[in-house]
Amino acid sequence: MGFDTSTLKYDDRGLIPCIAQDAEGGEVLMMAWMNAEAVARTLESGRVTYWSRSRQSFWIKGESSGHVQELVDLRVDCDRDCLLALVRQTGPACHTNRRSCFYTALRDGDEVELMKPMTE
Amino acid sequence: MGFDTSTLKYDDRGLIPCIAQDAEGGEVLMMAWMNAEAVARTLESGRVTYWSRSRQSFWIKGESSGHVQELVDLRVDCDRDCLLALVRQTGPACHTNRRSCFYTALRDGDEVELMKPMTE
Repeated sequence: MGFDTSTLKYDDRGLIPCIAQDAEGGEVLMMAWMNAEAVARTLESGRVTYWSRSRQSFWIKGESSGHVQELVDLRVDCDRDCLLALVRQTGPACHTNRRSCFYTALRDGDEVELMKPMTE
Repeated sequence: MGFDTSTLKYDDRGLIPCIAQDAEGGEVLMMAWMNAEAVARTLESGRVTYWSRSRQSFWIKGESSGHVQELVDLRVDCDRDCLLALVRQTGPACHTNRRSCFYTALRDGDEVELMKPMTE
């Protein structure tokens, strides 16, 4: 028996946010959205699969770029309306080629770039 | 000059999700929502302040419980529609008295409780 994805709480678009965290180093890599079917596919395949709001389609992370996220553990929060995916990330998680999408710090009114795009 | 909070992308409710991560250990503690004013208050006060969707009011984390989140660094993602707050968390972040809200793992169709409520 698989996990019953209907027990999670989705927003009015049928989506739940999912935070991806590096299972080893603990770095928060990105946040994206899943629908119930994306949650099921992620659990079944072990490949983190989001729902792309802009393309309105499933988005198997890294399918075109090769920057896949292998699922290590999927966790749900106390309110059942947010997911945390611990992953093994190949290469950059961000479409800007940076390891993490959270590369900009807001400090004293300025924006500070914390990391550069990765070179392959 | 403070940070211009209007440069962030909010959803149709005027909210942006904010992930709270332990600045030291790297544990993801919780995810909650901010509006532009909550972002400004968080940056100005150094006390992480969310917008409570259920109470429709500002929610200075730990104001009643004492389980405050002291801001160490606030980061924005590449799409400017998600925040990551690195914090010093006093006590549990979760209202269930657990350190993190993400205490339930989804494994082989079962839900596994990973941590117990903290005792004070």
